[in-house]
Amino acid sequence: MSVANADTSLTMSDVSTVEKSSPAERAEWVANPPEPPGIWREVIESLRDTMFPDPNKLSSLKNKTGTAVVGSLLQGVFPILCWGQSYNLGKFKNDILAGLTLASLCIPQSIGYANLAKLDPQYGLYTSIVPPLVYAVLGSSREIAIGPVAIVSLLLPSMIQKIQDPAANPLAYKNLVFTVTFFAGIFQAAFGLFRLGFLVDFLSHAAIVGFMGGAAIVIGLQQLKGLLGITHFTNKTDILSVMEAVFGSFHHHNDQWNPFNFIIGSSFLSFILITKLLGKKYKKVFWLPAIAPLLCVILSTLLVFLTRADRQGVKIVKRVPAGLNPISARHIQIHSPHFSQILNAAFIVAVIALTEALAVGRSLASMKGYNIDGNRELVALGFMNLAGSLTSCYAATGSLSRSAVNFGAGCETAVSNVVMAVTVMISLEMFAKLLYFTPNAILASIILSALPGLIDLHKAYNIWKIDKLDFLACLAAFLGVLFLSVEFGLLLSLVISFAKIIVISIKPGTEILGKLPGSDTFCDIHQYPMALNTPGVLIIRVKSGLLCFANANFVKDRILRFISSQEDASAKRITHFLVIDLSNLMNIDTSGIASLEELQNSLAASGIELAIANPKWQVIHKLKVANFVAKLKGRVFLSVGEAVDACLTAKMGAI
Amino acid sequence: MSVANADTSLTMSDVSTVEKSSPAERAEWVANPPEPPGIWREVIESLRDTMFPDPNKLSSLKNKTGTAVVGSLLQGVFPILCWGQSYNLGKFKNDILAGLTLASLCIPQSIGYANLAKLDPQYGLYTSIVPPLVYAVLGSSREIAIGPVAIVSLLLPSMIQKIQDPAANPLAYKNLVFTVTFFAGIFQAAFGLFRLGFLVDFLSHAAIVGFMGGAAIVIGLQQLKGLLGITHFTNKTDILSVMEAVFGSFHHHNDQWNPFNFIIGSSFLSFILITKLLGKKYKKVFWLPAIAPLLCVILSTLLVFLTRADRQGVKIVKRVPAGLNPISARHIQIHSPHFSQILNAAFIVAVIALTEALAVGRSLASMKGYNIDGNRELVALGFMNLAGSLTSCYAATGSLSRSAVNFGAGCETAVSNVVMAVTVMISLEMFAKLLYFTPNAILASIILSALPGLIDLHKAYNIWKIDKLDFLACLAAFLGVLFLSVEFGLLLSLVISFAKIIVISIKPGTEILGKLPGSDTFCDIHQYPMALNTPGVLIIRVKSGLLCFANANFVKDRILRFISSQEDASAKRITHFLVIDLSNLMNIDTSGIASLEELQNSLAASGIELAIANPKWQVIHKLKVANFVAKLKGRVFLSVGEAVDACLTAKMGAI
Repeated sequence: MSVANADTSLTMSDVSTVEKSSPAERAEWVANPPEPPGIWREVIESLRDTMFPDPNKLSSLKNKTGTAVVGSLLQGVFPILCWGQSYNLGKFKNDILAGLTLASLCIPQSIGYANLAKLDPQYGLYTSIVPPLVYAVLGSSREIAIGPVAIVSLLLPSMIQKIQDPAANPLAYKNLVFTVTFFAGIFQAAFGLFRLGFLVDFLSHAAIVGFMGGAAIVIGLQQLKGLLGITHFTNKTDILSVMEAVFGSFHHHNDQWNPFNFIIGSSFLSFILITKLLGKKYKKVFWLPAIAPLLCVILSTLLVFLTRADRQGVKIVKRVPAGLNPISARHIQIHSPHFSQILNAAFIVAVIALTEALAVGRSLASMKGYNIDGNRELVALGFMNLAGSLTSCYAATGSLSRSAVNFGAGCETAVSNVVMAVTVMISLEMFAKLLYFTPNAILASIILSALPGLIDLHKAYNIWKIDKLDFLACLAAFLGVLFLSVEFGLLLSLVISFAKIIVISIKPGTEILGKLPGSDTFCDIHQYPMALNTPGVLIIRVKSGLLCFANANFVKDRILRFISSQEDASAKRITHFLVIDLSNLMNIDTSGIASLEELQNSLAASGIELAIANPKWQVIHKLKVANFVAKLKGRVFLSVGEAVDACLTAKMGAI
Repeated sequence: MSVANADTSLTMSDVSTVEKSSPAERAEWVANPPEPPGIWREVIESLRDTMFPDPNKLSSLKNKTGTAVVGSLLQGVFPILCWGQSYNLGKFKNDILAGLTLASLCIPQSIGYANLAKLDPQYGLYTSIVPPLVYAVLGSSREIAIGPVAIVSLLLPSMIQKIQDPAANPLAYKNLVFTVTFFAGIFQAAFGLFRLGFLVDFLSHAAIVGFMGGAAIVIGLQQLKGLLGITHFTNKTDILSVMEAVFGSFHHHNDQWNPFNFIIGSSFLSFILITKLLGKKYKKVFWLPAIAPLLCVILSTLLVFLTRADRQGVKIVKRVPAGLNPISARHIQIHSPHFSQILNAAFIVAVIALTEALAVGRSLASMKGYNIDGNRELVALGFMNLAGSLTSCYAATGSLSRSAVNFGAGCETAVSNVVMAVTVMISLEMFAKLLYFTPNAILASIILSALPGLIDLHKAYNIWKIDKLDFLACLAAFLGVLFLSVEFGLLLSLVISFAKIIVISIKPGTEILGKLPGSDTFCDIHQYPMALNTPGVLIIRVKSGLLCFANANFVKDRILRFISSQEDASAKRITHFLVIDLSNLMNIDTSGIASLEELQNSLAASGIELAIANPKWQVIHKLKVANFVAKLKGRVFLSVGEAVDACLTAKMGAI
């Protein structure tokens, strides 16, 4: 789709000289198109299209002075320079309000997610400082809230604890987490730099809905450990293992669950859920659900401190070291015996993190009417995680729930992320010690309260309504994550999605066309029951985008069978001409051409003439090269209408 | 595609009442089609279509008497009853001539192929007796020549000798061969009975050409053992291992190659090749290349017998037991520790054998103008191999080279196969002892002489010319078979073929349409450079059969980028309407619909109106269910032409 070509082609105003054309002339146009781009040119063009999607931007640079060029390049790399120019006090006020709301939600969530990731609480807070700051400078989304998220916090331990047990060797486990985060950042930045953002699209919408739902339930199940105060829990994430561990804890006397944990957790969970309902109902108190988790942390910590419930078996967070992110660069293990496992985990973490961030960013951007360049976004997320891995953060991305809070609180730019990060920083410096008596159960209930947002039954129902096969991919991801493992669920839905593409692409089908009354259009007689048959001419359209080895024989047999079945019904042959509408075919291969040739031979033996209509560029080119066009003796037409007209004329001539 | 529906739809003669329709009415037709068949109905219909492809045949049975029904059922099962009725002495004469010609070629080839399959010579002859007789009764091809073939004779040892070494334990190896043949027969018959014949089509034309070429070279390399008289040879089939074994034999003193073998083999090979050339040049001596191999066997056997060259190191066949096929039913090993390997080998042998037989049968049938029902053919081939495995035969199929000889010799029906089988039978009874002194080198040269027919450079060149990606699959099969293994080559080309389908189906592309002068047709402006733009209206067609998760975002971004690039070029916005021609889309998924919605939102923000034209049945249905049609506010049109007309009218109204 090149602009130049579109512009040089004639416009309707200067047409008088070419306005007239005979059917024969048009048939000539069909049979002799210009040479289509060869495979090398197509590969090169699609590479260029991916690497430099905006040739105008490059050429427009040429007309500028040196400073202007540097300026617009810098603006390209740092979007902050773009929106920073129009930043003002009014916007700043809004950003501060949004940032503080965000921080009050982010602090308890970060601690909870760190717990989910089997790390000490401070690492969740660290992850809410560096990545948001980096993103604010590099990223182009204005509403996204950066930090640790539930899914990634689940993914990391589920993959890393196969290499290192976090309970047995927490230091080695932590180093592995940083290493995986480091490589995830490299993957993300590389995807963006090499403009491979489209890879993220390979996780279909349906698969993501199913995956998120399954992961939410898995995360919820993991919280049973904190909520019930169980010491010995399973390392597996599937529902069966977890239920076994939970029921086991009811029976073991020396490792029983503790009812105090459950009482604290569930009562505060009810409180958070009620504030959520209130916030949904009365838009004025939107801040209530946002600060409820922080309120719960403060209240429950006070409660435990005053009653010394920790002596009754209530599990608490204990010491959280004060101070900012320590440098973790020396913990990155480039030379590790588990290198391939690390890369594998990093790849999955990178893709899942990108998927969530892009989905959040795109949907919020389209609400505000601006567009996000996916690949640039990947670079920002990648560098943010790279920086994070060097400063004791684990993999961060855009959080679904907190971004919605940020949006609802009226954020204007990424400055709200900065405000949040600074707030977290201050809290970490000043209030870290106060977290000593925070009960683990409260962290579990904060995570649990965030999960319903991940399960989107409405979307799942819509998918079911629109596309049953899509729903199958959704269900496979859901059940796979739930009953097997996170990776397996993803893989399964990926396989189903691509199998669906193959099935739909090669599904051998044909449809009979009829003429719509009052127009020259020929349509599927099932889609348009008012369409009319043309006596003596059978018009068939191939119902797939490809006529290839996998379906060509079937299509041929079906057409021949249909013609012979018509002959059976009335003793006399009623079809004299077969027009095949090739307009659906994007491409054809050698097996497809061979089938068309066999079809023509069989038809010729029965005295039926074959004509083809409306072949696409690649198809007519290949048919020409394979000499099939020559065998058709000119019966190649621009449209079904012209083919039918020609057939009827030939029939008249024969009579 | 049901006949009933096609017939009830109106024909052009009774149209006067509905002939007139307004564009608004037609737009209504597009937006409100009848409900398309749901997924269950589609599955059931496609199953019915596969299992009972010919409903007329079933219904036509109802009008017949009991005897007639039994008669036509029997004819369905035994095609011999069909053509047997019109069989006469003239045809029989032709069949006898063809059968004798066939036998003279078949006897030496069978011995050679048995050698290739690492079996004793008599097993090749056995395989030329039972399977052809069974096929003559059940099969529907009239020209195919049944018996052992080169490719299958290569495949069997290449897979079975991994389980049992034929040199170390010939009896166990032989039993395994019968077992694999037995299960291959079961697979083939099951494919046919469950009408899974389309699975055979999954090996694309290109893959078969490459595979055949590679296999021919591999078979040729295996013959170096016999031609050079090497005792210690490799069990592997790839070119590197074989060349190593051959060069090794030049250096080892105690296991050197023997020049006498080579002299005998190569001189007779030259003789056969010369007769082949003569046969090609002078059609009158077509029988010369057919009997040349037998001639060679007789001459070389005499030569060795008279000179006692076997004492000089010329390797000979030695004892061939006289007598017909012994029963081998008790050698079939249903309970084997290698059961899965056996099934695997049987599956591959079944598919390859079917592929060769169907290709041969179909191409010869189309030359004589009749059609072969693939599934019935599979049943015939399956039962033939089942019967064969119980009577000491290994896997047989239709031979490419001998079928051509059969066809050339003027065979009329499968009786020529019967004549051949009887001839082989008689020879086996009477002349088996005479084969004692036949040199192994002559068998090698007979196989070598049959190989050039398997390497089809002309077809490979045609594939390269027509479709570069197809050629890649061809090349992969060729190189895979040559350098790795037969199975790997097949697998590789299968993967490439299906990857190609995915790539073509999801390749995100768009093309700009313009109006062809003098017609109402809108076409790709690159395919038809004479097409005209419509000022203010941009018409874009999606260039793939599917708008799905894997390409929808890319397509959306590309359209938006193109529109914004147009704005850059001229300061004023030049596009007011975007018409998307959806005619190429067979299907759309939820991600695709989401992209269309995002596209519409972005366009609306820029003041551009979106219209869609010519959606297919499934697509319009899904767009309706997803409420996208409602969002378009009636801008859904039957054709691009009507959409453009409506846009221009709206533009006029706006001005």
